[in-house]
Amino acid sequence: MSVTAARGFEAAGVHCGLRRTKLDLALVRSTAPGVGAAMFTANRVQAAPVLVSREHLEAAQPQAVVANSGNANAATGEVGVADARATAAEAARLLGLEPEQVLVLSTGVIGQRIAIDKLLPGLSDAADALDGDGGYAASRAIMTTDTRPKVASAGGDGFTVGGIAKGSGMIHPQLATMLAVVTTDYALEPGEPLEFLRPAVEESFNSISVDGECSTNDAVVLLANGASGAARDAAAFAETLRNVCRDLAAQVVADGEGATVVAEIAISGAASSAEARAVARRIATSPLVKTALFGKDANWGRVLAAAGSAPYNGGFAHLDPARVSLRYNGSLVLERGALHDVEPDDTDAPTIELDLGLGDGAARYLTTDFSYDYVRINAEYRT
Amino acid sequence: MSVTAARGFEAAGVHCGLRRTKLDLALVRSTAPGVGAAMFTANRVQAAPVLVSREHLEAAQPQAVVANSGNANAATGEVGVADARATAAEAARLLGLEPEQVLVLSTGVIGQRIAIDKLLPGLSDAADALDGDGGYAASRAIMTTDTRPKVASAGGDGFTVGGIAKGSGMIHPQLATMLAVVTTDYALEPGEPLEFLRPAVEESFNSISVDGECSTNDAVVLLANGASGAARDAAAFAETLRNVCRDLAAQVVADGEGATVVAEIAISGAASSAEARAVARRIATSPLVKTALFGKDANWGRVLAAAGSAPYNGGFAHLDPARVSLRYNGSLVLERGALHDVEPDDTDAPTIELDLGLGDGAARYLTTDFSYDYVRINAEYRT
Repeated sequence: MSVTAARGFEAAGVHCGLRRTKLDLALVRSTAPGVGAAMFTANRVQAAPVLVSREHLEAAQPQAVVANSGNANAATGEVGVADARATAAEAARLLGLEPEQVLVLSTGVIGQRIAIDKLLPGLSDAADALDGDGGYAASRAIMTTDTRPKVASAGGDGFTVGGIAKGSGMIHPQLATMLAVVTTDYALEPGEPLEFLRPAVEESFNSISVDGECSTNDAVVLLANGASGAARDAAAFAETLRNVCRDLAAQVVADGEGATVVAEIAISGAASSAEARAVARRIATSPLVKTALFGKDANWGRVLAAAGSAPYNGGFAHLDPARVSLRYNGSLVLERGALHDVEPDDTDAPTIELDLGLGDGAARYLTTDFSYDYVRINAEYRT
Repeated sequence: MSVTAARGFEAAGVHCGLRRTKLDLALVRSTAPGVGAAMFTANRVQAAPVLVSREHLEAAQPQAVVANSGNANAATGEVGVADARATAAEAARLLGLEPEQVLVLSTGVIGQRIAIDKLLPGLSDAADALDGDGGYAASRAIMTTDTRPKVASAGGDGFTVGGIAKGSGMIHPQLATMLAVVTTDYALEPGEPLEFLRPAVEESFNSISVDGECSTNDAVVLLANGASGAARDAAAFAETLRNVCRDLAAQVVADGEGATVVAEIAISGAASSAEARAVARRIATSPLVKTALFGKDANWGRVLAAAGSAPYNGGFAHLDPARVSLRYNGSLVLERGALHDVEPDDTDAPTIELDLGLGDGAARYLTTDFSYDYVRINAEYRT
């Protein structure tokens, strides 16, 4: 049901002391040589483990992933890079790999040096604990303000894809915007993992928003070891991978910090699909839309105001108020610019369908509300 | 002390029934023929009064402004435009002007037809109440979730500039992002008002943020009637106008919805001033930065993460983590990428000084925190 669902993968989750009592260190490895890829945050401020993992991906195929919570090892300068390198080197030593075959992911507070004196001994415990059923423990060890671990898996014809993710805050596109590790026993050639990962991430992790933030650490890793021996079927693998990524992404958004509502935003009729995404993203991140969602207030005027100010290409995405139709939770409230005098029902899972009436561009997005708890969680995060 | 501080201006604020009991209709007029200009929201969804006022500005010099709260008359289609035209026509009739000499501004709920049967009789009351001391009443009549009226004035050598504004939610750049009416008895030629207004707005109303929203209705109007008879001094007038706009903008941000903290963001060393503004805006609108401000948590890592993901030109503004220095509330926490092990004090008015170390671009911004009250106010706005 997770990162150990596919054959030939082991994982562990242990407590090493980066957090007070909770699991805080995850290790995932392929027991057979495989290939892999990763996508990282587009933030200009990239955490040390992101920098080190990028280097490693250029030098070798990844066989193992170390992921810790409690400290992001970001904005930590040269010492942070050295700490990330030491982490990969120690994991490699324990697993009989080269350091370049290990990826390092971190999540937590920014701007504090990671406690490497706790992390390295913890790695030894994690290596000892590696197990074919360890995926669930690993999923727990990467949680920060998550209230639930996120695991998913799906099977194809003779092969399996499984994964773990963490989300909660700083969930937002640009790129992978959270941590996720996905494994498969489907056989891929070097270079192929990224070809499959990119579109799957676009339709899953890049189509959700909790707070519009783009973290310094976000990453999605795919490891493939071919241990299934299944015949290759690219379409089936692509679909299975996409389903696992979507499943994890939906869990991430449903467990968004303080989320009480998950809304689905469907844009159609945009001038292009890129503009559709820009409009969807703007609605999905609008504080006024999100507080209205929290208030169970079908305040669709805020949806329209957000749509009209969607940043695109240095200006705003095209929108002609006279052509816009809007269906809020199934009720048509605006039809080609004309008001319908209806008051939509609201629910805990409203749908927002906006047809711009301009072209063929379409996009879908999941978003959460902004609640008191979002404020509480993020006002008190460090204290 | 407000829109009636300058000679030759009258104003009124009355209750016409768009809101339950509060003042909801303001009227401002010049008693002598003058010139004027206005800047409006850049949102693609422009409220009916914005569309009508734009037309009127092309046809004539504005002599009067009608501004109502309680209903934005936005997303109301053709009927909304007809209502805005009827409003201008009735005000013109009452004041002995042409309809094109009247600007109409509205603020409030989006997507509901305005109660024109209440508005038109209210205009008659407002015209009767016009008074050389009516600016304060006018400032109250344009409030929505504002807790305090915003008024300002400043004097130059023989002339005066004064204004009123409303803010609270949907405060954010792109343009004029709230309602403000500024009057002066300085003498301007046709065409000059916009030349003076544009830079003053850029450094005031376009350099504040409460929630990153861009409304459908925002407008800043400048009326100048030359009634002072003072000699022209362009530099002195520009400075006085800027000071009044800054004063009003600072009041708007301090009274932002739910605001408990006002933070000043100063960016320097950016690759260009446009990039400095992009970075300042991104920090000023980051939910994670703003919730940390609310929590009195000097969580400067979030500032850095926001700065690294500042949308600019289809990508992110330039930022090299190794060159960044950050001073949080006076404490140097990061110096050219290297951590300083200090914990900054926090206050109710923190300063965030970020030097990107790349060039000469600089920008300043005022922002508020995201508090429980921001969520409460916006979750309950209509109910």
